[in-house]
Amino acid sequence: MSVYLHDIPLPEARRVFEKALSDAGLLQVLEKETVPLDETAAGRVLAEPVWAKLSSPNYHAAAMDGFATRAEDTAGADPTHPVILKINSQAQYIDTGDPLPLWANCVIPIEEVEARDEQGRIVSDAHHPQEILIRAGSTPWKHVRTMGEDIVATQLILPSGHRLRPYDLGAIAAGGYAEITVARKPVVTILPTGTELVPVGTQVQRGDIIEFNSLMLAAQVNSWGGEAHRRGILPDQLETIRVAVEKAAEVSDLILLNAGSSAGSEDFSASVVESLGNLLVHGIAVRPGHPVILGMIRREKTKNGQAEQVPIIGVPGYPVSAALTGEIFVEPLIACWLGRAPLEPEQVKGTLTRKITSPPGDDDYVRVVVGKVGDHLKVAPITRGAGVITSLVRADGIVVIPRSVQGLEAGTEVSVRLYRAQRELSKTIFAIGSHDMTLDLVSQFLASKDRRLVSANVGSQGGLVALKRGEAHLAGSHLLDAETGEYNLSYIRQYLPGMPVKVVTWVEREQGLLVKKGNPKAVRSIEDMAREDVRIVNRQRGAGTRVLLDYLLKNRGVQPEKIRGYELEEFTHLSVAAAIASDRADCGLGIAAAARALDLDFIPIFMERYDFVIPCRYLDGDLLDPLFDLMNEVAFQQAVSALPGYNIRNMGKIVQDC
Amino acid sequence: MSVYLHDIPLPEARRVFEKALSDAGLLQVLEKETVPLDETAAGRVLAEPVWAKLSSPNYHAAAMDGFATRAEDTAGADPTHPVILKINSQAQYIDTGDPLPLWANCVIPIEEVEARDEQGRIVSDAHHPQEILIRAGSTPWKHVRTMGEDIVATQLILPSGHRLRPYDLGAIAAGGYAEITVARKPVVTILPTGTELVPVGTQVQRGDIIEFNSLMLAAQVNSWGGEAHRRGILPDQLETIRVAVEKAAEVSDLILLNAGSSAGSEDFSASVVESLGNLLVHGIAVRPGHPVILGMIRREKTKNGQAEQVPIIGVPGYPVSAALTGEIFVEPLIACWLGRAPLEPEQVKGTLTRKITSPPGDDDYVRVVVGKVGDHLKVAPITRGAGVITSLVRADGIVVIPRSVQGLEAGTEVSVRLYRAQRELSKTIFAIGSHDMTLDLVSQFLASKDRRLVSANVGSQGGLVALKRGEAHLAGSHLLDAETGEYNLSYIRQYLPGMPVKVVTWVEREQGLLVKKGNPKAVRSIEDMAREDVRIVNRQRGAGTRVLLDYLLKNRGVQPEKIRGYELEEFTHLSVAAAIASDRADCGLGIAAAARALDLDFIPIFMERYDFVIPCRYLDGDLLDPLFDLMNEVAFQQAVSALPGYNIRNMGKIVQDC
Repeated sequence: MSVYLHDIPLPEARRVFEKALSDAGLLQVLEKETVPLDETAAGRVLAEPVWAKLSSPNYHAAAMDGFATRAEDTAGADPTHPVILKINSQAQYIDTGDPLPLWANCVIPIEEVEARDEQGRIVSDAHHPQEILIRAGSTPWKHVRTMGEDIVATQLILPSGHRLRPYDLGAIAAGGYAEITVARKPVVTILPTGTELVPVGTQVQRGDIIEFNSLMLAAQVNSWGGEAHRRGILPDQLETIRVAVEKAAEVSDLILLNAGSSAGSEDFSASVVESLGNLLVHGIAVRPGHPVILGMIRREKTKNGQAEQVPIIGVPGYPVSAALTGEIFVEPLIACWLGRAPLEPEQVKGTLTRKITSPPGDDDYVRVVVGKVGDHLKVAPITRGAGVITSLVRADGIVVIPRSVQGLEAGTEVSVRLYRAQRELSKTIFAIGSHDMTLDLVSQFLASKDRRLVSANVGSQGGLVALKRGEAHLAGSHLLDAETGEYNLSYIRQYLPGMPVKVVTWVEREQGLLVKKGNPKAVRSIEDMAREDVRIVNRQRGAGTRVLLDYLLKNRGVQPEKIRGYELEEFTHLSVAAAIASDRADCGLGIAAAARALDLDFIPIFMERYDFVIPCRYLDGDLLDPLFDLMNEVAFQQAVSALPGYNIRNMGKIVQDC
Repeated sequence: MSVYLHDIPLPEARRVFEKALSDAGLLQVLEKETVPLDETAAGRVLAEPVWAKLSSPNYHAAAMDGFATRAEDTAGADPTHPVILKINSQAQYIDTGDPLPLWANCVIPIEEVEARDEQGRIVSDAHHPQEILIRAGSTPWKHVRTMGEDIVATQLILPSGHRLRPYDLGAIAAGGYAEITVARKPVVTILPTGTELVPVGTQVQRGDIIEFNSLMLAAQVNSWGGEAHRRGILPDQLETIRVAVEKAAEVSDLILLNAGSSAGSEDFSASVVESLGNLLVHGIAVRPGHPVILGMIRREKTKNGQAEQVPIIGVPGYPVSAALTGEIFVEPLIACWLGRAPLEPEQVKGTLTRKITSPPGDDDYVRVVVGKVGDHLKVAPITRGAGVITSLVRADGIVVIPRSVQGLEAGTEVSVRLYRAQRELSKTIFAIGSHDMTLDLVSQFLASKDRRLVSANVGSQGGLVALKRGEAHLAGSHLLDAETGEYNLSYIRQYLPGMPVKVVTWVEREQGLLVKKGNPKAVRSIEDMAREDVRIVNRQRGAGTRVLLDYLLKNRGVQPEKIRGYELEEFTHLSVAAAIASDRADCGLGIAAAARALDLDFIPIFMERYDFVIPCRYLDGDLLDPLFDLMNEVAFQQAVSALPGYNIRNMGKIVQDC
């Protein structure tokens, strides 16, 4: 049994892995190969510098259509003293790009000459005169592209390690090449393991997990310039996995062994690596991604030129961990093997909108969304779960909290490694506050209008607080004032004193009781929530729906303490519906659309108004224009109306103006 | 004959083209297609929004290995009052990811329980006890990934128009998809025309031009998400081109008809477009790229679902014009057909180092290099020639001078559309001053050291002036003081008074006379330059070699006015050599390496020193460290020594320190 390092810091893990790769002669370009210089060469990485073999142009070429001549013969020509040049001996017609006759040193553009016959009469075919008359002298090399103007033979066109762009192919062709020497694409074999896994496209049963890590890893590898080979799912059986790894080693430069999600699954990976070579590292103090395995295994059959050893990375089963393991370990290795610099994301600085706590000792990769609100870049952390792949889809970037830091307070300036182009950040509309099903439709419709909607669900009151802190461009709010029956305005006065805001009605929507299909517990009213046999699911404090529930309970004299599940809080209507659909609860207050989305029954209780609250200062630029346009767009209105329980008759109505 | 618009401004040309496309129903996604959700789907653009079909997880799943139980049954457990739970009725072992039994609502991690047999004795196999003892209570849904934690069925996973990244594939798979609907790749056929053209790989003769525009255009089209088809070179024959275009129209969504370099060649393109449909625009007021043609042609045989018309773009023959035509017209069209937003480069602001003159009435696309010198981004225009493809290879970006502006003064703040990641700009070493052959070697060697060398050849004195203006990090200089025989120092005192600089010797190199192979004019000395039958080529004013020539001429009593070609100035040693190799001159003063590069003879005259002059303030960061490292790197020293006429014995010697 080899001795391996357990739960070590990331830099140390990198060092250990690099040392092993270096010892095996694998910390360099793997192999060079010659490929034809065609359009498929774009994206490849030069393995040798390209020094020009030819000059370009490789002769003196006319830069205009006209007559090649000698500058000396044109001396003295001016409007009152024209000079006549004889064709053949003194001048010769030439097209742009044609080589200059050896005796000539300049070109007179055709539109600057008078074409004549031998008798001095002007001829109609200006390309074939007997003589030409000019009224201005020329100078040597005027209207000539001299040899080497673009490229001089022997000069460096591109250094090795350069990733080829379309223009580069042109310059290399001009330099006299028909083939180029590039780094061979590293072959990366991806082996998913886990008895609970089923392939994409399977009709899933309870307990099945769709295997998509190999899909993400393969797409990553290909995008980084490697050649990914995905293999079928392996059950959690030591011998099966061992045989598959051994076979993969014969044809791969790198093996990614993706463990199942079970905590025991990675132990199979570790055992296999130990049995076939050296387990170097098991567990790295990085989040998410803790159970990463690094090792080197022996290759039994060695192809010509192949190393005796193959690196293997045990990739954790949770998808966010898997994708980040790709970025942290696989990308730099592929870069090294291609001879290019590792990818380095653009970074921006912004301020955290929320506190992040982070376990000490771990380098913590926190997914964040970033948006420009006013003049400030605001950085909002999103869910931390390693199983939440949508957190990577939504992420604008990553904030790395180093292992020496326990966490960061709201307001801290942080550096974000961006997943998007920086210019996109200023086209992001930050919406915060109450969740509504129509926000998904807004995302869909804005996508074609050069805007992106990023929404955070913190409830109506949370949204107003966020506006106060300058963390979002608008807040969705449906806060009912129990005294006046008025929506939002009294809360705005309370939370945003002195801040000029515009309040626009977005939708009216039906709130009601969500219950399981067929309503097995026969819940019919707010009062039924207090029944002994009924478990509810609630919304979080500050949510408009929570305010509404509390109002309705008080109204009907029901004590919240009597209600089972009152303390079970979810952040969105859909999550409430999901809790009921999955039998975590029997009912909850929410909107009709959420019920229909998850095939629940719905008992209408209340029609409420949902407004957008927008600080006036964000109306200056054109950022929000497409959102206002949507309110008048028929296709959008129809899509909203098609959701059950929605009414758009007051969409866009101004409740309070700037 | 149709009436077309001639030499119109770019925005108008765009409008006319878009109107014609819109009338033909071609200003939208061309067609949708369904593709399997595998790694090749990365980079494709969604043609429909993806709404989740499944929740993920689609059941309540254990988030830890441990025992599923009911939180109610654990109530009251603490270190002094442990609670015992019976296996099967109250607790059940479960692996991470496994579905929770329907009766359970939380998981107690295996490391937090005491596994016991029926008699209460601790058992070794913690996975199969008869009962478990716990010393802490749990709460509902603790250590459970509840159904929908990641994705709730019906929610929007991604909007249409989104270009798929690796993570996105994972999220879509998790949402229950095995296929996705994407926009079909537009087929773009590229037809190069021009009798003077030869394919890449041809042994070129005088007058041949290597055809590489189709290569660049094809690589561009593919990189933008289209499917490029390159066809063979067509001679400048109207009927041949017409037939080829007609045939291409049957299978293409867009045709790029690339004219030869001759000014007449584009007329063939225009005639062909007129004969097959509508010529909309001939000539656009944009530089480079003036002769662009836009048109729509009829499709004779129409495939199912294909439009009756096909847009065609006549692409100018000069390669820079061709590539920019791709960026200006082809990319936005492909973007539209894919349903994604057009690419928008990141932009940065910087100050111009040199004046740019620009013809009024044209939108002028000026290639520039950009580097961070001190705290300032400096923007240096590079050569304007539309035939100089290396200008695009070298360019860090484009400055667009609008048609209302005649030019921009040095020092003006300009906006640069970047071709590179912004972070690369701060890894760029700006060298300016005297040209030396070793600078190509520096570029090659620095490429693997995370640095990029951008050099501008303005002569030794020009380099010192540039340092004074803060335009470069270092200047290469070999200025001989005729009075003292000392190098550079007196010039530094003159040009950079009060600026602390470090002066380091780079190389010593032999200056001499470059003459044609075999020295047909028998030039042997500086005095021979004044002979009647000898034409020289000179270096520009301020170049160290020019200073040296003037010094030698004065020394030997030769009048510059007597020398033919004294006023013919080139900016680099290689250009001087190229002028001689191509018979523009018989001799010139230069370095031995340039002679060997172009197979010239060399008559040694003088051994001179070439120093780097570096303002001390640029030595603060680590930017220049790799350059200093090179001076001690054996492989690099060997490469320099291998150049003829170079001596490295004093490389790195400090002439003047900070």
